[in-house]
Amino acid sequence: MKKLSTIFFLFFVTLSFAQERTLAEKLGYTKTDKLLIIHADDIGLSHSENIATISSMTEGFVNSTSIMMPCAWSTEVGELIKDHPNLDIGVHITLTNEWFNYKWGPMADNVPGLQGPDGYMYPDCASVAKNASPAEVEKEIRAQIEAALRIGIKPTHLDSHMGCIFYGRPEFLHSYLKLAKEFGFPAMVVPEMVESIIKTNPELFKDIDVDNLLVIDQVAIASPTIYDEKGMEGFYSDLFSNLESGITALLIHVAYDDEEMKAVTVRHLYWNSTWRQADYDFFTSEKGRQLIKDNNIKLVTWREIASVN
Amino acid sequence: MKKLSTIFFLFFVTLSFAQERTLAEKLGYTKTDKLLIIHADDIGLSHSENIATISSMTEGFVNSTSIMMPCAWSTEVGELIKDHPNLDIGVHITLTNEWFNYKWGPMADNVPGLQGPDGYMYPDCASVAKNASPAEVEKEIRAQIEAALRIGIKPTHLDSHMGCIFYGRPEFLHSYLKLAKEFGFPAMVVPEMVESIIKTNPELFKDIDVDNLLVIDQVAIASPTIYDEKGMEGFYSDLFSNLESGITALLIHVAYDDEEMKAVTVRHLYWNSTWRQADYDFFTSEKGRQLIKDNNIKLVTWREIASVN
Repeated sequence: MKKLSTIFFLFFVTLSFAQERTLAEKLGYTKTDKLLIIHADDIGLSHSENIATISSMTEGFVNSTSIMMPCAWSTEVGELIKDHPNLDIGVHITLTNEWFNYKWGPMADNVPGLQGPDGYMYPDCASVAKNASPAEVEKEIRAQIEAALRIGIKPTHLDSHMGCIFYGRPEFLHSYLKLAKEFGFPAMVVPEMVESIIKTNPELFKDIDVDNLLVIDQVAIASPTIYDEKGMEGFYSDLFSNLESGITALLIHVAYDDEEMKAVTVRHLYWNSTWRQADYDFFTSEKGRQLIKDNNIKLVTWREIASVN
Repeated sequence: MKKLSTIFFLFFVTLSFAQERTLAEKLGYTKTDKLLIIHADDIGLSHSENIATISSMTEGFVNSTSIMMPCAWSTEVGELIKDHPNLDIGVHITLTNEWFNYKWGPMADNVPGLQGPDGYMYPDCASVAKNASPAEVEKEIRAQIEAALRIGIKPTHLDSHMGCIFYGRPEFLHSYLKLAKEFGFPAMVVPEMVESIIKTNPELFKDIDVDNLLVIDQVAIASPTIYDEKGMEGFYSDLFSNLESGITALLIHVAYDDEEMKAVTVRHLYWNSTWRQADYDFFTSEKGRQLIKDNNIKLVTWREIASVN
């Protein structure tokens, strides 16, 4: 009897230990290591975004990106990555079209809840949450993943444009996790989503193995206030100097401040062409690269994270 | 009895005279006048095409254009024309997507015959004629006209991108004429279409008042051979010096040879960014303007043609 209880005790310790191993540790790092994914959102959006993002990954030190499949320029990415088969590239699930003069609609057929009166996607997540049914969102996520596969992308991960998957209905997050699992790659999630959405809807998420989700520790992103007060270089320098331990996904947006991008982002004060050029400049700069080294930050990719499972 | 026959005789002479009046005469010109519509196809295609086309109409001597509604940049045109409410702008019914890396699909819902396996439009008219049903094409024509109206365009005419309406099935031409009539503006047709399509399918076209169609006399357009042998300036100089009498629609394509347009037209040897820049250069040049004067060519617009009915 004592022997049996010892076995049980050891079993539970092992189990508990397994559960408590952080994702960083599973990747072979320590709990206190500072790990960073430098992730350029929005490739596929425009020609300018495409060539600047690829350049920031091949000439600079951006190490991951994700594609907006519904945009007119997404298929160009399939061609651009042919010479760079190992780039980290996920599917940036896109449910919104936020620009005034540059448009796209859903990829799936018969998803009227994802279309405004003009047939294009809504400009904001609130409208998506209000108008789109969970079934329509799931259909659209699937259509976007399948479209990425068709142009030769082997997605390393899923994430969400403007976060509409996370700030919409819990069913949206469920479909996102379910389809990532079905297609066999991780989906970006942070602990807050697990606590506030998944654990509060156990019935909805019962088919998701929550304990084995590849949950990164935090997301960092420049905000309008930060941009106005510190500028991009100031923000990233501060971030790198004070980076928390664990895995941080730093979400940036890389494009050139050229005629096309000025017109795409016209009348937007933030996330516009100058913002994206500032991101390009920093993440291709020697100064930025040196700050990564000086702060002992280790760059990790979604491909490495996916290899954990 | 004699009186009655005289009345009949006069009636038939009048009728015959009315029928024989050319469109040029109905516009107040003589049969031998050389009338020209300088028509820039493809506004809406890209930002570069949009701003170059507007510039060629406001700074140069292009006097008509037509919009490709399914393209990502079409709504920008709604904004660009606000300051130029009298520009001649029609709907360039678009059933094809001919570029390698820049994509669009249909505007109508549930028109799978207009979509290739990737969901975008086919690159050529032959595939449209083979795969799209007349009902789908009619639905798409309607969707494109309605989309143009939604962004504030008051269409002056209809025409057809790459001529797919004319070289597809006769039903396509029928829907095009039927919807132009329904919405109240002329649709570009030339005598060959009347003879070879309309008159050979009288049953199909029985609801079209063929005798009162606003048929222009001819279309002129640069071809790859002409482009290679004479260049744009050579072609247009020759054309203007030898212009036939009646109404000619000269179809040109105006954009800048910039990064966006180079990428839109990548690997296309013709109708590409340098071709479109050459059109822009000629139709904003003093030389071109002088040639119009020297050859006593009178510029007419679709708005004027529409006023005939």
